[in-house]
Amino acid sequence: MELIEKLNWRYATKAMNGQTVPQEKIDNILKAINLAPTSSGLQPFEVMVITNPEIKEQIKGVAAGQTVVTDCSHLLVFAAWDRYTEDRINRVFDNTVELRGATNEGLENYRQRLLNAYPQQEDEVSFNHAAKQAYIAFAHAIAAAAFEGVDSTPMEGFDAAEVDRILGLREKGLKSCVLLPLGYRDEENDWLLKLSKVRKPMDEIVTVID
Amino acid sequence: MELIEKLNWRYATKAMNGQTVPQEKIDNILKAINLAPTSSGLQPFEVMVITNPEIKEQIKGVAAGQTVVTDCSHLLVFAAWDRYTEDRINRVFDNTVELRGATNEGLENYRQRLLNAYPQQEDEVSFNHAAKQAYIAFAHAIAAAAFEGVDSTPMEGFDAAEVDRILGLREKGLKSCVLLPLGYRDEENDWLLKLSKVRKPMDEIVTVID
Repeated sequence: MELIEKLNWRYATKAMNGQTVPQEKIDNILKAINLAPTSSGLQPFEVMVITNPEIKEQIKGVAAGQTVVTDCSHLLVFAAWDRYTEDRINRVFDNTVELRGATNEGLENYRQRLLNAYPQQEDEVSFNHAAKQAYIAFAHAIAAAAFEGVDSTPMEGFDAAEVDRILGLREKGLKSCVLLPLGYRDEENDWLLKLSKVRKPMDEIVTVID
Repeated sequence: MELIEKLNWRYATKAMNGQTVPQEKIDNILKAINLAPTSSGLQPFEVMVITNPEIKEQIKGVAAGQTVVTDCSHLLVFAAWDRYTEDRINRVFDNTVELRGATNEGLENYRQRLLNAYPQQEDEVSFNHAAKQAYIAFAHAIAAAAFEGVDSTPMEGFDAAEVDRILGLREKGLKSCVLLPLGYRDEENDWLLKLSKVRKPMDEIVTVID
């Protein structure tokens, strides 16, 4: 199927050519992010879309100098909620009630269940849970970019505390968790493009229980 | 674009009709899982594909009795490595060397960097990192299922330790982290299908820095 072809086409692009990705394609990638399913629909993350050259340069400085950070067209920074709070949970439920025009007992019971559980979690547990939801959106962005013929580079190799400082994320109750430069592969200069894609044999990943 | 249409079509299906998903579609979903990018390409997870009715029944019993677990066609259980080890890292690098027919200094330096860092991490940090990679594959599975017109239900609401026990995962050095029943929506009986999809306004999720 077409999606599999696109996922085979993509790779973790190490060199980009500086070409700009059209806004329409960026918008589709952002739509895929917003459509990603998240636990209880809380969408506990935000995404920074960076084209500013100085900010990209600063982030490259805390991302092992990887040139793709500055040579990309748009740099996405996925930042998860530093923790779940009553206020954040209530805002999501209030939005749901408003959009659907009414509430009901099931929804309000569900709200209470979350309010009685999430805000009491330890910070680390809470952030880790939020970060996993951000990873779902991140993976949707990777698939959507590939589908649009846009290259991307999934990146965990950066100093998250420094990226938080550069973007003022902690003041917003956010912590960066993963980066995704978007752009177009530099076909002449990307060493990785010349190497075959490596994946495990399916039988090492999949166990059928029938 | 087509992928966005499919992501709009999908929803967290609460009732399935028991119809079987054709093997070809399951294979494509599993291919998307195997093609998911992971940190350093380690693919630190496995997926159990369950059609056995008794096992599904047992898992339903530790998943708040959610009927979609038994009414689905195939139940996917994503299980991450309980932790990174030297042996696991070496196996992945050895596989890469074998597939590409040669090694090189860059690859071997990279292997050493991981061997000097990952096996020393605390268990919890190590598992959380592996679980995030599993979530990337999980999100690819959700997108691929939607693309194939197959319904799915992203599920965190289950007793992971009990699922590990039912499937014997700990003996394999694995811990379950998320479930994905696959099948077809029961259009008459799914209460959620009648409600509108709720997402945040884009400007609450996205900040442009240009």
